[in-house]
Amino acid sequence: MAEPVITFLSDYGLADEFVGVCHGVIARACPAARVIDLGHGIARGDVLGGAVVLADALPFLPVGVHLAVVDPGVGGPRRALALALADGRLLVGPDNGLLSLAAAAGGGVLEAAEISDSRFALRPVSASFHGRDLFAPVAAALAGGAALVDAGVPVAPDSLAALRLPRPHVDGSELVAHVLIVDRFGNLSLDARGETVGQVPGLSGERVTLGGVAARRARTFADVQPGGLLLYEDSRGRLAVAVREGDAALRLGLHSGDELRIGPP
Amino acid sequence: MAEPVITFLSDYGLADEFVGVCHGVIARACPAARVIDLGHGIARGDVLGGAVVLADALPFLPVGVHLAVVDPGVGGPRRALALALADGRLLVGPDNGLLSLAAAAGGGVLEAAEISDSRFALRPVSASFHGRDLFAPVAAALAGGAALVDAGVPVAPDSLAALRLPRPHVDGSELVAHVLIVDRFGNLSLDARGETVGQVPGLSGERVTLGGVAARRARTFADVQPGGLLLYEDSRGRLAVAVREGDAALRLGLHSGDELRIGPP
Amino acid sequence: MAEPVITFLSDYGLADEFVGVCHGVIARACPAARVIDLGHGIARGDVLGGAVVLADALPFLPVGVHLAVVDPGVGGPRRALALALADGRLLVGPDNGLLSLAAAAGGGVLEAAEISDSRFALRPVSASFHGRDLFAPVAAALAGGAALVDAGVPVAPDSLAALRLPRPHVDGSELVAHVLIVDRFGNLSLDARGETVGQVPGLSGERVTLGGVAARRARTFADVQPGGLLLYEDSRGRLAVAVREGDAALRLGLHSGDELRIGPP
Repeated sequence: MAEPVITFLSDYGLADEFVGVCHGVIARACPAARVIDLGHGIARGDVLGGAVVLADALPFLPVGVHLAVVDPGVGGPRRALALALADGRLLVGPDNGLLSLAAAAGGGVLEAAEISDSRFALRPVSASFHGRDLFAPVAAALAGGAALVDAGVPVAPDSLAALRLPRPHVDGSELVAHVLIVDRFGNLSLDARGETVGQVPGLSGERVTLGGVAARRARTFADVQPGGLLLYEDSRGRLAVAVREGDAALRLGLHSGDELRIGPP
Repeated sequence: MAEPVITFLSDYGLADEFVGVCHGVIARACPAARVIDLGHGIARGDVLGGAVVLADALPFLPVGVHLAVVDPGVGGPRRALALALADGRLLVGPDNGLLSLAAAAGGGVLEAAEISDSRFALRPVSASFHGRDLFAPVAAALAGGAALVDAGVPVAPDSLAALRLPRPHVDGSELVAHVLIVDRFGNLSLDARGETVGQVPGLSGERVTLGGVAARRARTFADVQPGGLLLYEDSRGRLAVAVREGDAALRLGLHSGDELRIGPP
Repeated sequence: MAEPVITFLSDYGLADEFVGVCHGVIARACPAARVIDLGHGIARGDVLGGAVVLADALPFLPVGVHLAVVDPGVGGPRRALALALADGRLLVGPDNGLLSLAAAAGGGVLEAAEISDSRFALRPVSASFHGRDLFAPVAAALAGGAALVDAGVPVAPDSLAALRLPRPHVDGSELVAHVLIVDRFGNLSLDARGETVGQVPGLSGERVTLGGVAARRARTFADVQPGGLLLYEDSRGRLAVAVREGDAALRLGLHSGDELRIGPP
């Protein structure tokens, strides 16, 4: 039988030992589990960014336990969750919306448990490191075959925290979109899908403006000159903005959550 | 039977291939071993920081071989060690104090070997990369079941290098502590335990000063306002200083090793 | 039987989820494979740096599938490759020279396949993330036992892209070398081997100049004072330049590809 898989996403970074300690906790509780680090570079406390990354990555990950910790409210009253999705995946993380997009992508929540007082938690549970004391051990127990009902107290799936996402819309001749993710190259993933822009009258040509700046609709970086600004469909399937061999976030002065108006030339 | 575990801590960083090459060396010598990266972001040459991180993490790691390389004296006369601890753990690394706190945390050293000329080393041993040529192959051999006596030459446990640590103490109405770790968020872990401060007369209330700056004793970040300075027990069990959604090291101008005076308001 | 090994080198960095998603894709396609991250900190688009790191690391890695993605031409016309080497290793990556030094180090290419339209690719293949959609799935299939001929279309080994490398040479009393790798400490790996410098008349003594700056030939960092500039043989076997407890790239103002003249004092 294949080893159970736990994927792990967080904003812990890799400069400190926090991720390594969580790996240790998992290896103690479920030595058979294989842990795949989806990434730990989510901006500190960026719940929206983490939620988008997790949901977009899910189709490329083995079905397993998906541990996610971006948790600015740690130590406060927010609940802690383990979720069973319709597609067979299990999610573990804080109840702050982080899991909500992945839950929807996985067909919705069949069963939810509040795990703050889980019998699998390490005691005492620290006030500031629930990744180690709560989420990792619960994920390990689930990977080892424990039932959700053993991990915590059932809660109603419709009571879970959701994200209030901006929505892309058409305003006159412009498509109004929003920045969801800024990657380390300064490429911007928007909340519109790649095919959207071609469906807006006046935006189906090769030339567009992005916040008033001239840009080119392209299939790939190689289609523009070095330094050129392009609007394209990124690998997440999202409408995206980049500068070839440059930094679009810097060029346009945009951050996560910002609005971007895509208009005719 | 479970796979043998090697945990790996270093100051190599992840920008270069040094960590990956060590993983390769281990996989060649002991394909069954699972390697857990405890972390590679220890500040370059920060033996004290590495020693504290390793010792604090140990209880959360499976019993196995614990490889640690923070080695500013590589190529010089310092010895190289493999240690068997009372609690069954094995430590491998340079004899510069890096292993000393973990050795104490593991119940002390039962057996020590000087491994500079180990038969498991890769030949020739380079002058600058003992992680690859010496420490990783010895760790792999031990994980594969080799005895300590086969890995090197026995040395007396009481001859090992120790760290001269600052000690927290009470001075009048103040608790004088020292910064041991500055994490990437600018949170400061001190050399005093979390419960210490409440035992000092005049410091048991909610308000304190940190180097003369007003702060609040709190259980968690959520107990103060954004930007608020707090004194709390961190996830390592240590007394710690943080700024909610901010950087305490920057705010107080403190670095690893610095003294911090905790006084009444 | 031992698990098949895939090593993975890229310029994706670890700030984003790109590496983690590739791990997910591999785990879905070949759950038995163990993935060793050789490193993901190659400078963005630095094909030469990636090629040198891969070739230098190869002897320390288990024989397996060696996946490498530094791919500034992704989405353009460059071919995608899977190569079988004389020493039994398999290489997977773009046809831009990235694999060429490792191929030579592995005894040359026995068999090459163009995999751009591989039946193992994820469909649709995105324009910008061939690591996920093409290279990782092909690497996983090969690790799982697929034959090269099943992964793509045979191409002539002598048609593969090669790197035009600078060559070290002697010019009068100077050895003219070039910087191949700048690591995160600012240490410089050159294109000359460590033993070369001692063979040049006038450079066999302890004192030399590096671009006119006085330096010392040394076996290791400990042989010079803190702040001292040294010329030594690094752990890759290359002639290298460093500043003890400092940054040689900064001190000498050198970047990857730059020429460095090593002369008599």
